[in-house]
Amino acid sequence: MSSSCEILTLASLCEFLKSHDNYVVLTHANPDGDTLGSAYGLKLGLKKLGKKVQVVCCDEIPRKYDYFIDDSECDFIPETVVAVDVADIKLLGDLYERFEGRIDLNIDHHISNTRYAKRLYLDSDAAAATQCIYEILDELGVEFDRSIANALYTGLSTDTGCFKYNNVTAKTHEIASKLYEIGVDAGEINRIMFDTKSKSRVKMETMVLNSAEFHFDDRLMLMSITLETQRKTGCTKTDMEGVPAMSRSVEGVLVGVTLKETRENEFKISVRTYDPLDASAICSKLGGGGHKAAAGCTVLGTLQEAKAKILAAVKEALEELDEGSDTFK
Amino acid sequence: MSSSCEILTLASLCEFLKSHDNYVVLTHANPDGDTLGSAYGLKLGLKKLGKKVQVVCCDEIPRKYDYFIDDSECDFIPETVVAVDVADIKLLGDLYERFEGRIDLNIDHHISNTRYAKRLYLDSDAAAATQCIYEILDELGVEFDRSIANALYTGLSTDTGCFKYNNVTAKTHEIASKLYEIGVDAGEINRIMFDTKSKSRVKMETMVLNSAEFHFDDRLMLMSITLETQRKTGCTKTDMEGVPAMSRSVEGVLVGVTLKETRENEFKISVRTYDPLDASAICSKLGGGGHKAAAGCTVLGTLQEAKAKILAAVKEALEELDEGSDTFK
Repeated sequence: MSSSCEILTLASLCEFLKSHDNYVVLTHANPDGDTLGSAYGLKLGLKKLGKKVQVVCCDEIPRKYDYFIDDSECDFIPETVVAVDVADIKLLGDLYERFEGRIDLNIDHHISNTRYAKRLYLDSDAAAATQCIYEILDELGVEFDRSIANALYTGLSTDTGCFKYNNVTAKTHEIASKLYEIGVDAGEINRIMFDTKSKSRVKMETMVLNSAEFHFDDRLMLMSITLETQRKTGCTKTDMEGVPAMSRSVEGVLVGVTLKETRENEFKISVRTYDPLDASAICSKLGGGGHKAAAGCTVLGTLQEAKAKILAAVKEALEELDEGSDTFK
Repeated sequence: MSSSCEILTLASLCEFLKSHDNYVVLTHANPDGDTLGSAYGLKLGLKKLGKKVQVVCCDEIPRKYDYFIDDSECDFIPETVVAVDVADIKLLGDLYERFEGRIDLNIDHHISNTRYAKRLYLDSDAAAATQCIYEILDELGVEFDRSIANALYTGLSTDTGCFKYNNVTAKTHEIASKLYEIGVDAGEINRIMFDTKSKSRVKMETMVLNSAEFHFDDRLMLMSITLETQRKTGCTKTDMEGVPAMSRSVEGVLVGVTLKETRENEFKISVRTYDPLDASAICSKLGGGGHKAAAGCTVLGTLQEAKAKILAAVKEALEELDEGSDTFK
């Protein structure tokens, strides 16, 4: 399918958008701030050009994004299907089968994009898909307003950990600056996105922190989330996002390990490392894999057995590291 | 003293900096990223103009700022004293007496500035003092390099919670964009500033979270840090920064209360509220005060007694709120 995917420039993309109408804009499943900000930013922008647009997502949209959701509907027969921030058609979730082979346009920023659409506009240097949408609407001459700014800023801010991660570029800040000039409600958006936790998340964090152990001269921090913890705190999948990152944020810690019980006596282990340690190499010893800084594996046994297995794998890696550094002494 | 304080424009400030030399740049006590980033950014910039500059701080500089600290020294007799990010001369700490009446220039962004210096350049719209320093060095025609960018970015990022708070403006992002063009190591800086906690901080957070109580239909979250917690975790003053903010970050919570035992049977209470609740009004019932969203008071008694007092004060405020909203029903 990839051979039939036409790669668009910004100019040819804008020509396409101007010459088409009756848009259905698709987001990925488990929608986040970037896919939603992109979809509604594009909807609001295209509406200003007199186009008819509808956003479709296979999952329910979390209430916290209400401030930029445009629910206005108008009757029209869908003609043009656009997927935004969707790197692979499988990420459409339950919409996958309905739209397979029928995506006219894909706007994305993931270098891993699988080129499943008829046309693709890809800017893999963009920190967020809303960064692309900003440039597209700007090129189209759309008059930005506060709602559009709020939608686009939400993507920029959530995909960069509020301008914290390495994916941020000069252009990301330049666009943020322009969204401020338009009057974006950034302080309030960031409070909702970054400084608000559910009560069950707080309870879960507390129990996870209580489970924390330090090993190997405090170079490893280990935390565990048992089925019992999950039951007691009533926490959801969303509540558990970002927990593995907590394990790597302690001074001096080179390896953060999180064990999550997925069913009785089965643990999904997440490993996070700093250079020069290789999380993927550690997890491959237990049949898993991933990236150098973040990897995972699944281990069977009791919590104590699972801990013993991952600790042994990390011990080996640390010993190799110590031997390596000895040669420089 | 305020009558003799000359207010400088950007142009007259730059004239002053060009026509003087042998600078001593003072930071405030308990130095943070903004005062240090401003002082070293200014030092590095003025050195590029051939000036001699020394930075002086009454306290030890935390190691985490090492990446922009310029320790190079040269012998000179100090002539021009500049205070950066110092709103009140008392904030100089132990340097106060030595420099009282001798500050030639003050560069600041606090609207509360007490105008203690002979000359003041104040931009109270600037999110950080380094935002002012950027504009000054730019006006002076200094050729920016990565070290200067790292110093200035550190102030921008730490004073705004990484571009999260309400003090951010279009200009803040515009300057951040320019620092990225210069090659700032922003990802690494943000990791050090925002994603690294000491082990004692993690232990302290765990104990504080374990102390969490919810009252009044989960509209109040209360946490306590006893002398015993402080002793057991070995946490420092720095480790305790930001704890009151934790109490207000839970969904649905309108009032966050933190009780910190300062000595046996004495509690410093921090109150954080959301609109329309008034933290200052709540604390004034117990002899304290502050701002609408953040206030404090000191209460004597056991932990249970202190809790009872602040809970009663909050209860009154919530009841007034409920009565107020009844009238709209």
